Amino acid sequence: MMASDEVRLARAYLCGVAEPPAPALAALVAVVGPLEAAARVRQGQVPERVAKETGARCARELAAEQLRAAEAVGARLLVPEDDDWPLAALLAFSRSGYPHLAAPLALWVRGTKPLAPLTERSVAVVGSRACTGYGSHVANSLGFGVAELGVTVFSGAAFGIDGAAHRGALSAGGPTVAVLACGVDIAYPAGHHRLLAQIVEEGLVVSEYPPGTTPARHRFLVRNRVIAGLSAGTVVVEAGWRSGSRRTASDALLLGRSVMAVPGPVTSALSVGSHRLLREPGVTAVTTAAEVVEEIGRIGIDLAEPSAPRERPTDNLHHTTARVYDVLDQRSNGDVRRLGVESGLPVELVRAALGELELAGLAERTPNGWRRAPASPKHAGKSVEGCGGA
Amino acid sequence: MMASDEVRLARAYLCGVAEPPAPALAALVAVVGPLEAAARVRQGQVPERVAKETGARCARELAAEQLRAAEAVGARLLVPEDDDWPLAALLAFSRSGYPHLAAPLALWVRGTKPLAPLTERSVAVVGSRACTGYGSHVANSLGFGVAELGVTVFSGAAFGIDGAAHRGALSAGGPTVAVLACGVDIAYPAGHHRLLAQIVEEGLVVSEYPPGTTPARHRFLVRNRVIAGLSAGTVVVEAGWRSGSRRTASDALLLGRSVMAVPGPVTSALSVGSHRLLREPGVTAVTTAAEVVEEIGRIGIDLAEPSAPRERPTDNLHHTTARVYDVLDQRSNGDVRRLGVESGLPVELVRAALGELELAGLAERTPNGWRRAPASPKHAGKSVEGCGGA
Repeated sequence: MMASDEVRLARAYLCGVAEPPAPALAALVAVVGPLEAAARVRQGQVPERVAKETGARCARELAAEQLRAAEAVGARLLVPEDDDWPLAALLAFSRSGYPHLAAPLALWVRGTKPLAPLTERSVAVVGSRACTGYGSHVANSLGFGVAELGVTVFSGAAFGIDGAAHRGALSAGGPTVAVLACGVDIAYPAGHHRLLAQIVEEGLVVSEYPPGTTPARHRFLVRNRVIAGLSAGTVVVEAGWRSGSRRTASDALLLGRSVMAVPGPVTSALSVGSHRLLREPGVTAVTTAAEVVEEIGRIGIDLAEPSAPRERPTDNLHHTTARVYDVLDQRSNGDVRRLGVESGLPVELVRAALGELELAGLAERTPNGWRRAPASPKHAGKSVEGCGGA
Repeated sequence: MMASDEVRLARAYLCGVAEPPAPALAALVAVVGPLEAAARVRQGQVPERVAKETGARCARELAAEQLRAAEAVGARLLVPEDDDWPLAALLAFSRSGYPHLAAPLALWVRGTKPLAPLTERSVAVVGSRACTGYGSHVANSLGFGVAELGVTVFSGAAFGIDGAAHRGALSAGGPTVAVLACGVDIAYPAGHHRLLAQIVEEGLVVSEYPPGTTPARHRFLVRNRVIAGLSAGTVVVEAGWRSGSRRTASDALLLGRSVMAVPGPVTSALSVGSHRLLREPGVTAVTTAAEVVEEIGRIGIDLAEPSAPRERPTDNLHHTTARVYDVLDQRSNGDVRRLGVESGLPVELVRAALGELELAGLAERTPNGWRRAPASPKHAGKSVEGCGGA
């Protein structure tokens, strides 16, 4: 189902009349509906808190013009009355009860894909604009990796981590969604106009700001709550001490989303923000795309397989058997009594262990006693020195 | 108080007669005392579980010889009957109830300092032998930093992280304790014989293995429990997927100690172990010596001060004031009404904000309206672009 033109026009007016987040206006709309709310705002017949949010702009009738401007660039206004509205994701806003997490009244969407399905399995990958090569590499790999696993990457299209994450997702052929702090008709940052065009092609560019809105400092933080809200989880890749990404992460926590941070060198100022997050309760360290998907994913379906550990021939031995193996020599031959003293084990146990080791091909019987079987290549370098402090 | 020669001799015998950990023997000693336990072991009058631990070596009467060998290198046998026994630290062993965490029956100690006081404010810094330059740098800095704060660094004297941590502590003039997997008379690894000599001079070299005992693979893991137990907390700096340091960390957790891990690049195989730990419950990410000391330290005394964030001129402004500041232009002049529309704020609030900004030296009144005050050097580059995605 699609919303009526009338409703869409009213929502467009409401979107433009208050600077988001507008908790009082959002509450009014929730109670009386967009048509009635728009009428009341126009007449100034609203409670004082709504008047404070809408008074400065209530005379601006730009809705029709903004809808035309959107259409001209292949964008549309998505409203809660549309089927494609990401209701499940955005319910968390109204439930949170935090004024700064008021739900968007509508979303300007550029691109042809429907938004709601893209939010179902989704993750925000965010971080510093002035990232390091390490951060850029990790963001790109994570973007690629989660996209390969069918998860949509949300980010803010900024330089640095954001751009690397979007590009990673695009390389994997996955859709990605950029949420802007300005109108969807504005390519911001300008250096990313080609990236944004590609995102429009393969995914979506989204904003709660009407076409023509220019970016302003406070809009980036306000926008960040939309990134956090549209995604099932947020990963911070690199962030300095003071970072908008930490705000995205804190919004995500308040919205009940998973929050993850990628560790980095403690010597890097660009990982300070990630490490601060890791020291907070409820934040998970992630190092691979699989771990990210496990965190946001459906339990039992998206379980990350631990990277396979290297096998050692002695891995599955009983610890007493391993102790006998330790004291076996490769060159000289040991009798059972000497092996017992050296390993501190009774002779019966030494005998049993030697039998087990022989079966495993780890020990061999010689005319003069027992010795370690010649090392297989797999086992080379795993001598006593090889298992010291590490 | 010092233990009697008789008790020390009995403990020396018991130390040599069973390969640690020897939970059954430790339990016997706890019940009947060292003199009676030694007599019963010699006569073979012990329960089967104790016999299994002691049978292979019970005829070896090396105690007097080992005590002389210790004395020859300036070492002594520290026993629980001595005042200097680190009782508070080692109580956790008997309380843990885990057989593999049986308490040491005595400790061979090389150096002149008393051990117990060194364990009171202490941290184990452990990690991979084959560490990276990053790991070595971090271990050295942490060793230096915690030693400066009066905390003893415990480690295993191995190549890599262990050595770097000991050296860091020594550079700060602090004592450090090396716990070996061989006799204290053996310089292992040989390449660390000068480092070990310096540790003996400034701190202590400790082992539960009698003089002359050579290192064997299983002894490293068994030794790790002593490192974990003598320290108030354990920090893993760098560790591969399979790492003895993870065992130290898991022993520390079982003993009720703090466990910390230092994050590193997720692209480094040597940080995989640290990151696995960080994904486990109860493990804290640490990035500085102050954070380590806070974790192990006395609450309210050793609280880490967060690194000072950079200040911004708008930091302490009310958010509506900051919104007006955002829309103020540095070149052109804005009237109050235009600023209201751009910021989405009522005119009264804009006026109040402008007054506040003027007082703070952030806005100035001109004949034609308001503009942003020329940026101070501190504020340069903090324009809208400077606060984007990051």
